[in-house]
Amino acid sequence: MAPVAPRSGDAIFANVERVNAELFTLTYGAIVRQLLTDLEEVEEVNKQLDQMGYNIGIRLIDEFLAKSNVSRCIDFKETAEVIAKVGLKMFLGVTATVGNWNVEGTTCSLILEDNPLVDFVELPDTCQGLYYCNILSGVIRGALEMVSMKTEVTWIRDMLRGDDAFELQLKLLKQVPEEYPYKDDE
Amino acid sequence: MAPVAPRSGDAIFANVERVNAELFTLTYGAIVRQLLTDLEEVEEVNKQLDQMGYNIGIRLIDEFLAKSNVSRCIDFKETAEVIAKVGLKMFLGVTATVGNWNVEGTTCSLILEDNPLVDFVELPDTCQGLYYCNILSGVIRGALEMVSMKTEVTWIRDMLRGDDAFELQLKLLKQVPEEYPYKDDE
Repeated sequence: MAPVAPRSGDAIFANVERVNAELFTLTYGAIVRQLLTDLEEVEEVNKQLDQMGYNIGIRLIDEFLAKSNVSRCIDFKETAEVIAKVGLKMFLGVTATVGNWNVEGTTCSLILEDNPLVDFVELPDTCQGLYYCNILSGVIRGALEMVSMKTEVTWIRDMLRGDDAFELQLKLLKQVPEEYPYKDDE
Repeated sequence: MAPVAPRSGDAIFANVERVNAELFTLTYGAIVRQLLTDLEEVEEVNKQLDQMGYNIGIRLIDEFLAKSNVSRCIDFKETAEVIAKVGLKMFLGVTATVGNWNVEGTTCSLILEDNPLVDFVELPDTCQGLYYCNILSGVIRGALEMVSMKTEVTWIRDMLRGDDAFELQLKLLKQVPEEYPYKDDE
């Protein structure tokens, strides 16, 4: 595995501007409730949350690159580790474990045991098809697309559905090659 | 004026769980955009944001009372100071100035020069009637209602409309008297 030496997620998280996690959680809950009311179909809500996340991810990547001092990742394995240990920490204050790699090194999972998005959340029976945290998969997909990695991001396990953790599968579909490993002017 | 001695907003803010402010700002922006798409009328969006905020406020007050160690405020003046110096700090990481009191002590303004909700936000011409931060007025209204103060909360100045600060007017409509100043079992 490629060596990973990003700036510590804890150190970055301590130095960025933050807001109260409960406010964020309740605000996110208000979005989901609003979408459920407006769109009616749970499947449409999943799509919309993913799209919102994508729009956020393509902007958030700039803050991530500016604050984390992470240079361009060498490969998808390093990228996944950086998301798990630096990205998630920097934005949500949690980290994930990376696992379940396929042999080609193109598919893996981020496993989260703590997820501030779902504090105090219980899904009613009418929402069983809902991927409540779908904004997060969209954010990661959007952010990766801005660093030339086209991915598919799907939930494999979801604690709101009774699983024992949150597992997000990242599948690398296409990687646009870049000058390697650093641009000349860096 | 009544003496105000709440636990410092900074100290509380340092000890609550937090998420990245930019993530919060972008997520909030996604809500507003979604509402503008779904509801079309700016006036309806204002109402919906206020209602979302109200629903958040009636829950957030519990976290506030639990973490801040603020005991029941003696009067509306003290309440306004606590919101400005402790509540806003605890949830958004900013403080406000309290001013523009009427002689009866029932109306005042919270004046914010910094507001994380509006970072990177510019309103297009089609949204000129929008109170972008209306969720905040709803939160304060909801939280105050849970401590027996019925209020009207309105924006007087808004930097997104070209004003030099954010000014939120709090008007006390009705206060349900409580045992004063502490309950017997405290």
